[in-house]
Amino acid sequence: MPAGNGSSRPHPDVERLLAPVVRQLPQPTSLSPLPYDLNAGLPDPESLPWRELSEAAVRALERDPAGALTYGGQQGYEPLREWIAARQSRETGVAVTAAGVTLTSGSAHGIDNIAATFLAPGDTAIVAAPSYPGAIRTFRARGARIVDVPEDGDGVDVDALEAALEAQRAAGATVKLVYLMANYANPSGTTLPIERRERIVALAAAHGALIVEDDAYTGIDLDGPPPPSLFAVAGGRGVLRAGTFSKTIATGLRVGWVTAAPELIAPLVFMRFENGASPLLHRTVLEYLDAGHHEPHVRALRAIYSERRDAAALALREHCGPHVDFDSPAGGFFHWLRLGGDIDAATAVRLAAERGVAVTPGAGYYANGGGEHRVRLVYSALTPERLGQAIALLGEALAEAARG
Amino acid sequence: MPAGNGSSRPHPDVERLLAPVVRQLPQPTSLSPLPYDLNAGLPDPESLPWRELSEAAVRALERDPAGALTYGGQQGYEPLREWIAARQSRETGVAVTAAGVTLTSGSAHGIDNIAATFLAPGDTAIVAAPSYPGAIRTFRARGARIVDVPEDGDGVDVDALEAALEAQRAAGATVKLVYLMANYANPSGTTLPIERRERIVALAAAHGALIVEDDAYTGIDLDGPPPPSLFAVAGGRGVLRAGTFSKTIATGLRVGWVTAAPELIAPLVFMRFENGASPLLHRTVLEYLDAGHHEPHVRALRAIYSERRDAAALALREHCGPHVDFDSPAGGFFHWLRLGGDIDAATAVRLAAERGVAVTPGAGYYANGGGEHRVRLVYSALTPERLGQAIALLGEALAEAARG
Repeated sequence: MPAGNGSSRPHPDVERLLAPVVRQLPQPTSLSPLPYDLNAGLPDPESLPWRELSEAAVRALERDPAGALTYGGQQGYEPLREWIAARQSRETGVAVTAAGVTLTSGSAHGIDNIAATFLAPGDTAIVAAPSYPGAIRTFRARGARIVDVPEDGDGVDVDALEAALEAQRAAGATVKLVYLMANYANPSGTTLPIERRERIVALAAAHGALIVEDDAYTGIDLDGPPPPSLFAVAGGRGVLRAGTFSKTIATGLRVGWVTAAPELIAPLVFMRFENGASPLLHRTVLEYLDAGHHEPHVRALRAIYSERRDAAALALREHCGPHVDFDSPAGGFFHWLRLGGDIDAATAVRLAAERGVAVTPGAGYYANGGGEHRVRLVYSALTPERLGQAIALLGEALAEAARG
Repeated sequence: MPAGNGSSRPHPDVERLLAPVVRQLPQPTSLSPLPYDLNAGLPDPESLPWRELSEAAVRALERDPAGALTYGGQQGYEPLREWIAARQSRETGVAVTAAGVTLTSGSAHGIDNIAATFLAPGDTAIVAAPSYPGAIRTFRARGARIVDVPEDGDGVDVDALEAALEAQRAAGATVKLVYLMANYANPSGTTLPIERRERIVALAAAHGALIVEDDAYTGIDLDGPPPPSLFAVAGGRGVLRAGTFSKTIATGLRVGWVTAAPELIAPLVFMRFENGASPLLHRTVLEYLDAGHHEPHVRALRAIYSERRDAAALALREHCGPHVDFDSPAGGFFHWLRLGGDIDAATAVRLAAERGVAVTPGAGYYANGGGEHRVRLVYSALTPERLGQAIALLGEALAEAARG
């Protein structure tokens, strides 16, 4: 229910006018105003390549002022789509062209665009439990039924996925999408082994469902390259792969993309209603890429986040040891904590907030309940020193929560 | 029906997966590749303030790199919302604050956001005949029924609007939105007199419908300021006013806004799924505005477009005189031509295209049929000299069409 003027319910005159789905949606997650923010999945602010982006923006405007400042179409700037297509081709072995790429305002917009195009009210979308809450909101906004499938330490349980697909078929439901983060899932940090990827691709194909591969954290590879993407495993067929420069350049650019077979990209482009994104942003990003900044920057980020992941893990074991358990992820921005004993996540989050530390309670990551003893902790945005301070305070909060 | 790989129908495997509404939507309008483009509603390319925007982008990044390059929230950069609110307050006499403004990717995205928030399948949206096709597409994509109301030379016929509202009420339908362009309507160029504005506001209020005031061309005032906006007439109540910097700075910025009562803005923000627009763009625009570039630039644009409007009108009378009739608009980018005799717009457009001139056939501007003898001609993007050349060629095409 949207807040109007600080209240938790809209004005009655407004409520009468809202589309019914608005009343059924959960609140979006929001940024934290607390001193230690381990809540928002943000890159390290100090390493943002702002000088390089500033130079790139100036070059983009000098090179073709009218091109940078005039509508660029719904699919987005073709040379940037060509760059992304070439990289995806190298990485996946699938021949991707610019017709197989559409540019979006971050991967979240890509997921929204996919939902608008493929989900009708009553269709089923399958997601992992836990999953990125933004995707769950987007699917719900289209009237989809959300079926969730549990994860273990290697990501989604494929036997459970198969059972869910069978059950939906038996019930006469139409499963349109299977939404997964194969690498460094948000929030669990899990990475699917190749065997699971192969089975998932085969299962989705057998059930006529599209796979939505949310690749938001791919590139933040802290233990070497991940296994081949679901898109690669599928030979590019039946998989819509949503990526972004948010985590590898800057979240504030809002430049992402979807890669898929051209016949799946065409309807995505058709279902856009905002006259496309800014070609100034697209051209700025391409100038930045063409100047050779990307790969060295991503290497530097991997070193920064690897150090922070490990520092956070050490601090968690030192300060929160008796109360939390977790598996360190092979990439991305999060530790996903299991709270011990009977510690309730909502209580732990409240007690941590009282100490100035924002972490995220697990419940919001489950479409259909769960996560009461789970907490997501972002290690990407703070220095190791501040991470240590924050986690020490979290340890005090957990100790108090454990005392009940 | 979306084109896939150059064909006019999607791949059968894809068609099965599409949400049904995708199959019911018309194609979006697209840019023309012809030598004389009188089709796309674009600003003059030579006058784009690219140097000022380049300096503004550099300042935005220097002043606060992390702020410009990190998620800025769904509602958008608050100081830019404050600037827009202050301007709207001065202009309308309604006390608008930043809580009454949300930033969108152009006004088209604002209309889409409004549709997502308020239109449920089966709701009615009332539009003018003719209307901006992008708005019609957006409303149809939400499953709305579109009722259209004729225009005369002063914009929408208010008696017909009243009759439509009564008929919808009698039929038990829910009219959620009345979508209008009060100033320099696209495509007709009409501007509503104050008396019509007052009656429209009263009628919408009496029927419990929201007014969506699409202000895309406001600012391009070629005969002095327009009458008070519908938002102003309504004292800010029940009107969602969608504006943009597209026509007054650059279409490629994709920075627009919706102004409304805060209790209507809150659900719009709630129904966003793309993690907001780029704060780099918002901050660049605010740096540009704060540097004092906006008002002088808009004054210069008014002089440019006034000259072009009049040059196009003169050329139309000279070269197309026997075959077209039109009223010169008080602002905006278009002449809206009535073709004489039995000239069919589709034929005229085809014959003009054979001569290298792109104009837009009228039919696409009508939700429920019409416009067979109407053509929209954009005068904003070409110099008076090239406009004269294009319109001479159009005259030849019309003469050929009239010969049958």
